[in-house]
Amino acid sequence: MVDLKQFFSEVSFIVDKEMNKLVSEAGIGPQSLSDAVRWSLFGGGKRFRPALVFAVGRTFGADDASLVRTAAAVEMLHTYSLIHDDLPSMDDDDLRRGRETCHIKFGEATAILAGDALQALSFQTIADDENLSPDVRINLISGLAQAAAEMVRGQQLDLESEGKQLDLASVENIHANKTGALIVFSANAGAIIGSADEQTNSIISDYAANIGLLFQITDDLLDVTRSTHELGKTAGKDAAVGKATYPGLLGIDPTRETIAKIHGQTITQLASLNVSTDELKAIADFIIERGS
Amino acid sequence: MVDLKQFFSEVSFIVDKEMNKLVSEAGIGPQSLSDAVRWSLFGGGKRFRPALVFAVGRTFGADDASLVRTAAAVEMLHTYSLIHDDLPSMDDDDLRRGRETCHIKFGEATAILAGDALQALSFQTIADDENLSPDVRINLISGLAQAAAEMVRGQQLDLESEGKQLDLASVENIHANKTGALIVFSANAGAIIGSADEQTNSIISDYAANIGLLFQITDDLLDVTRSTHELGKTAGKDAAVGKATYPGLLGIDPTRETIAKIHGQTITQLASLNVSTDELKAIADFIIERGS
Repeated sequence: MVDLKQFFSEVSFIVDKEMNKLVSEAGIGPQSLSDAVRWSLFGGGKRFRPALVFAVGRTFGADDASLVRTAAAVEMLHTYSLIHDDLPSMDDDDLRRGRETCHIKFGEATAILAGDALQALSFQTIADDENLSPDVRINLISGLAQAAAEMVRGQQLDLESEGKQLDLASVENIHANKTGALIVFSANAGAIIGSADEQTNSIISDYAANIGLLFQITDDLLDVTRSTHELGKTAGKDAAVGKATYPGLLGIDPTRETIAKIHGQTITQLASLNVSTDELKAIADFIIERGS
Repeated sequence: MVDLKQFFSEVSFIVDKEMNKLVSEAGIGPQSLSDAVRWSLFGGGKRFRPALVFAVGRTFGADDASLVRTAAAVEMLHTYSLIHDDLPSMDDDDLRRGRETCHIKFGEATAILAGDALQALSFQTIADDENLSPDVRINLISGLAQAAAEMVRGQQLDLESEGKQLDLASVENIHANKTGALIVFSANAGAIIGSADEQTNSIISDYAANIGLLFQITDDLLDVTRSTHELGKTAGKDAAVGKATYPGLLGIDPTRETIAKIHGQTITQLASLNVSTDELKAIADFIIERGS
């Protein structure tokens, strides 16, 4: 059995240490800006995307030293997107991971700039990673930039969808861009650093796309079934702003069935890989369990 | 004599064509976001930074094909910074280059996301540039990311300085970060692509830092001496928000003397290079003339 709790806590420790170093060395400033960056970066995130980089990378034989900066980069890009998504003109969220969002704590201008700085730092982190060959770095930076563009597309689509009646395909398209793209990149990054072949990379992409979808659907489900206190962010938000979600479109029980179906597919996909995928399976299980 | 008008118009033509292609190929979307990006990108910018990439690059023998994507990347990063700087929570500007700013035209959320997308695209543009070796791309991406971080620092310092009494050193520090960093990077990028040696690169950095300073001081001066109609953006803005500027601290005539002194230093620096620097001299002249 994979001890996923132990794995996540190990990844968090390694990645947080690296991000702490990166933020210091990058000399993000002045103080107010560095405080805002640290507030959002070290605000209790689960480090799910870094865990995917490590899980996939280790699966294909990459060592931790060659994975840690890319893992930090995806977490920093993710954090930038959360800071901007929370802004008043966007999702207007006051609460994130159980505490004030960046703009509530530091003001809107500083929050926008903290996000901007984190996006730049995430690219710099990979560019300066001497554990990776220039070719691999270029490959990762290009992929990360594409994911960043898809996240922006997803957020714009999401904002434009509020109050509209969307079908399931449109909801899935928003998720695939807004949440899925960076999750898929995180898994792909692990495979790239682990020098996996083309076919393996394609299986990993499919796995990660399903993981991303599972992640978002359970997130939607949690928004309906859990309290603000349990979530650490405002519950019932989706329904309040008329956002199209799986539970909203299908109902709660069919949403649970969809989750089980996608989870099953995911496990089947992994079986076609010629390596031990216990950790990757455990991650798929973990996502489901948080939504049950 | 260098025909600088012809040079700028040539660079604009080449770079605008490239940016048009890049925005299309990147598939920035949905439509609203792509419209917002194009509105700001093709809004009559002078393409000063791309011109520096080309002027320095050609000075050291680089061909246009190896310069054009980096030139496009710096202009896209510059445009992202303008979009975010203009936001209501930042400088709150309604007018830019004679027309509505991005958030006035497309709303705040779309403007923030358009800026975010442009930042990502600027890194991707260099990462995918097959005219450059992976080593050069890595070098450029790292430098561009550092410039991006300095721009954010400069903007934060600038916002925090409003209404405060700053000395000249603090004003210069803000300028060096907010405007100077990307101008220095643009010149350095040309030298890197042209394979200039370390010492040459250092002279080019000094040249570009002075160019950046000249650019900002003349900008401050224009804010005092020109009308909103002439500028294409709100005139007298700096004084209205109590921003520390050269003319505000020194008076108009001593500001003009400072400009002449820095310009003189710049020309002297260029003389120590063993190549023809007519174009670089002409650029230094051009900046002064627009402020006279």
